[in-house]
Amino acid sequence: MPRYKLTIEYDGTPYAGWQRQENGHTVQAAIEQAIFKFCGETISLGAAGRTDSGVHATAQVAHVDLTKDWSSSKVREALNAHLVIAGETVGIINVELVGGNFDARFSATGRHYLYRIINRRPPAPLEAHRAWWVKKPLDADAMHDAAQRLIGTHDFTTFRATQCQSKSPVKTLDHLSVSRNGEIIEIRASARSFLHNQIRSFAGTLNEVGCGRWDADDVTAALAARDRKACGPVAPPYGLYLIGVDYPITTGSGRAMPSTP
Amino acid sequence: MPRYKLTIEYDGTPYAGWQRQENGHTVQAAIEQAIFKFCGETISLGAAGRTDSGVHATAQVAHVDLTKDWSSSKVREALNAHLVIAGETVGIINVELVGGNFDARFSATGRHYLYRIINRRPPAPLEAHRAWWVKKPLDADAMHDAAQRLIGTHDFTTFRATQCQSKSPVKTLDHLSVSRNGEIIEIRASARSFLHNQIRSFAGTLNEVGCGRWDADDVTAALAARDRKACGPVAPPYGLYLIGVDYPITTGSGRAMPSTP
Repeated sequence: MPRYKLTIEYDGTPYAGWQRQENGHTVQAAIEQAIFKFCGETISLGAAGRTDSGVHATAQVAHVDLTKDWSSSKVREALNAHLVIAGETVGIINVELVGGNFDARFSATGRHYLYRIINRRPPAPLEAHRAWWVKKPLDADAMHDAAQRLIGTHDFTTFRATQCQSKSPVKTLDHLSVSRNGEIIEIRASARSFLHNQIRSFAGTLNEVGCGRWDADDVTAALAARDRKACGPVAPPYGLYLIGVDYPITTGSGRAMPSTP
Repeated sequence: MPRYKLTIEYDGTPYAGWQRQENGHTVQAAIEQAIFKFCGETISLGAAGRTDSGVHATAQVAHVDLTKDWSSSKVREALNAHLVIAGETVGIINVELVGGNFDARFSATGRHYLYRIINRRPPAPLEAHRAWWVKKPLDADAMHDAAQRLIGTHDFTTFRATQCQSKSPVKTLDHLSVSRNGEIIEIRASARSFLHNQIRSFAGTLNEVGCGRWDADDVTAALAARDRKACGPVAPPYGLYLIGVDYPITTGSGRAMPSTP
């Protein structure tokens, strides 16, 4: 059975998150329904990141095994046609044939997220559901400096949702940067994997720094506390985007191979 | 009575356009209601551009006379508070005290519009209602070259909606450019004033050039035909943004003065 890697963009606004659930429509269910309409197969999609309700993606990755040996472009075109007809705010950006040992979740070696803040006093209707509207002027440089305190391998209990299912609160944060582009502040985070709500917890905490209520030492202290109560207010979901997932280099024949430096 | 100049951003998706009408909620009505809630006054807002249903603005301009001498910031904050409470996708970006001879529509010396195309084969859910999704690859350079044939003073009957109320089809187009930024194609148009549907007619016609069905000479011929039937298919409203309106320089005291070169 051929395995396909799907790269997926979605507006998360109308969905109860990525993962299929009994109550509420999800991105996973939308794509599984499109697959069923395309080829009649009932499958379960595995994805690199289980985004929460309202969270977006420009490059979520999932994999699926299909019985028949469709071409990648046929799969992409057919799924997109069914998604558009169903009125889903989901698009399949790319489809690639991969080896049977490729797993969207477990093969991933890096995940990249973007958190967008629109920082201005008036409302920003064209950024509604696309960015967190913060009225108070934010000091992006101070946010960036404080963010560097979080990089590295730490016990991130402070920045972890209480319902997080990860076995360990210890993660290695490779990159966390804050930059301003006009009224937009972009927070970029990269790691092999993240805890539940970790980036929204970072964003909410860095917002405290940006508006001057916290300084970088407060962030260091919050991290050291290893206590959920030490976290700043968690930022809302609609500013968050899953923007990329790294995998070992895959060959044209679909076998997964480790990348060589 | 002090006169205020309002600069307005809106997501036009949920509105039946700018102008108040009996059937359907409009941007004008949303702001007039906010003004009524703020100060109890029933006024009629004049605007620089009567955008159609689904068309957006980052810098629409309107003016209003209020009985009491409110500060500009008080007007801005109060209107935004009422707009947010009412769930409107409208924000007042700026409020400025101007002289009694300032008229948002008739004082305007230039209007600037942006038309956005998302040019890629897969659907683009994060650009839904924000750009026109065109699947066929477009040649932005060819579109730009053809666009230059439209610049200048012409009878634009070809690019004018049949219901256009302008007295004359003769307008002077100052600027029309097409550029690509990744998957986004931006069409920028500037003139003292435009005919109804003129920019959407340009965008639809230039799309014909971009995908190779028309060449620049076809655009010249369409213009020369002065016949609505010679126009390309009119592009959809949701790619269009009113992004700026020029006025003669106004002084701090609110008197309008002609700008000096």
